[in-house]
Amino acid sequence: MSASTNFHRAFFGKCVLITGGLGFIGSNLAHRLVALGARVTVVDAQIPEYGGNRRNLAGLAGRVRVHRADVRDWPRLPRLIRGQAFLFNLAGQTSHMDSMTDPQTDLDINGRAQLAILEACRVHNPAIRIVFASTRQIYGKPDYLPVDEKHPLRPVDVNGINKLAGEEYHLLYSQVHGIRATALRLTNTIGPRMRVKDARQTFFGVWIRRLLEGEPLEVWGGEQLRDFTYVDDAVEAFLLAASHEVAVGKIFNLGGPPPVTLQRLAELLVEINRGGAFVVRKFPADRKKIDIGDYYADDRLIGRKLGWRPRTDLRAALTKTLAYYRKELRHYL
Amino acid sequence: MSASTNFHRAFFGKCVLITGGLGFIGSNLAHRLVALGARVTVVDAQIPEYGGNRRNLAGLAGRVRVHRADVRDWPRLPRLIRGQAFLFNLAGQTSHMDSMTDPQTDLDINGRAQLAILEACRVHNPAIRIVFASTRQIYGKPDYLPVDEKHPLRPVDVNGINKLAGEEYHLLYSQVHGIRATALRLTNTIGPRMRVKDARQTFFGVWIRRLLEGEPLEVWGGEQLRDFTYVDDAVEAFLLAASHEVAVGKIFNLGGPPPVTLQRLAELLVEINRGGAFVVRKFPADRKKIDIGDYYADDRLIGRKLGWRPRTDLRAALTKTLAYYRKELRHYL
Repeated sequence: MSASTNFHRAFFGKCVLITGGLGFIGSNLAHRLVALGARVTVVDAQIPEYGGNRRNLAGLAGRVRVHRADVRDWPRLPRLIRGQAFLFNLAGQTSHMDSMTDPQTDLDINGRAQLAILEACRVHNPAIRIVFASTRQIYGKPDYLPVDEKHPLRPVDVNGINKLAGEEYHLLYSQVHGIRATALRLTNTIGPRMRVKDARQTFFGVWIRRLLEGEPLEVWGGEQLRDFTYVDDAVEAFLLAASHEVAVGKIFNLGGPPPVTLQRLAELLVEINRGGAFVVRKFPADRKKIDIGDYYADDRLIGRKLGWRPRTDLRAALTKTLAYYRKELRHYL
Repeated sequence: MSASTNFHRAFFGKCVLITGGLGFIGSNLAHRLVALGARVTVVDAQIPEYGGNRRNLAGLAGRVRVHRADVRDWPRLPRLIRGQAFLFNLAGQTSHMDSMTDPQTDLDINGRAQLAILEACRVHNPAIRIVFASTRQIYGKPDYLPVDEKHPLRPVDVNGINKLAGEEYHLLYSQVHGIRATALRLTNTIGPRMRVKDARQTFFGVWIRRLLEGEPLEVWGGEQLRDFTYVDDAVEAFLLAASHEVAVGKIFNLGGPPPVTLQRLAELLVEINRGGAFVVRKFPADRKKIDIGDYYADDRLIGRKLGWRPRTDLRAALTKTLAYYRKELRHYL
């Protein structure tokens, strides 16, 4: 039976809550879940510096409930969480640099609010099934490559420390309180609906913007190897995790097609765009301190356990992403 | 040259701040530092359920400044931190069970306030030297024994998750911002000035109380192996860490004399007390979920780097502790 048929069975008519649902991955999840017949509610704080964008739910008017709410606003959580069958928990502060200049805000969103969400689930909806968006950032600078789930956790910035705490809360609540949760450790995810206005979500976003605006891309460093998950593949992983009991209490890496250097990525992008240029720059000192060098994930565990694999090759991912922003760029500036 | 001479040189006339300074280890540190000629300021929230006790500074009147302040009260932190040469950062919520029933308070004290303390240091006193009291709790259930500093970190309760974040903040601020910090991962610490009123700080405290009140001790489980650091040895480790540059940015386990089972510990205590009894009870279900089984530390790293070793054998530690509470028990009830 195909994954799509199984997904239809798992999610059709089900109540699903997506925190950070106006954001990049959250909104792509919302589109897919609506197509599967789920009853989707989206929560997003719509903080201007973050990934939330109303345009991300274009075409879903009347088919998704949207609440403008901040996960730090605890009193609102119980009402949002009651009655939901699934929670895709993607609300987060994602900027590494911001976490260093404003560590308390990062902790409030990535740590404190996560605990509040889990407490609300424990008290008001202990049968809920949660998939939490964690991050490769918690590994820090790799000891070896590819990085598997057993790699030591040594976050190199406040964001990594707090995301690690957030992940650990989810697994602890799963183990001790029986709140069934899975954590996915995402690597760089790319695709339509990502923030491209600036480099707050990922450097890749602003590359897309600059390329389409005819400006040269800035490649910092350039030799670092990285892997890239296309967003449809990431969405597939969230749905697989949520619909498999074997995933409860587990952590899985997501990876992508074979890793490339950032310079190679820039070359590919310019080539696919049939035009553009990039300049290679030395790392700024403050960024260098929290950079992790090469990273790519060993994602064989989720392959074995849930049958996931990254299906979209890098060229296709870049082509689709560029095509989206050629039409949509003005809604993302 | 003896450690004491070196300590005199390192701390004489120096301004030292101790958070949690009315607590068990903090107050023992205060006594030692006053004896070494340091100018000691103590901060303690004096939360009734925690370890702070005015009696712990008996004999130091006029020689220690005491501020009743909560480390969660950020606006007060800069004034306390400015001008200090050393910060012994021992304020914490220590109850594992409380962290499960009130996780947000645990996070506020063990995570959020730690970040606020470090931010205050970064902005107002970046030259300060910090030693942070971390805990074996962050290792979770050991994969192997003795547990060294490279053991995976898999905390089994909210307290462990938040203490881990607290430790990581300290090391990150050391690495990225140059705030020189060392973390000591404490195991069970015992000795005069510990909380004995109940089992909130450690089961061992309430054992002392029950023994002296002629009640049988309750031993939960009994077969678990544990190690015990005598508080004077723990204090020595804090002073060594603070006074050695080689300790900056490092993590060290503290251990004790050879580990014993909890049942053997109870037997020894009854023997040294020349009277008393204990009953062995099955673990309560809620406690069992977050118990870690056997634990004892590999503390050779701090031995090699700083010359620390646990000098007080278990019999001597128990004898001194009992002697203290024979005189002082009423001040701790």
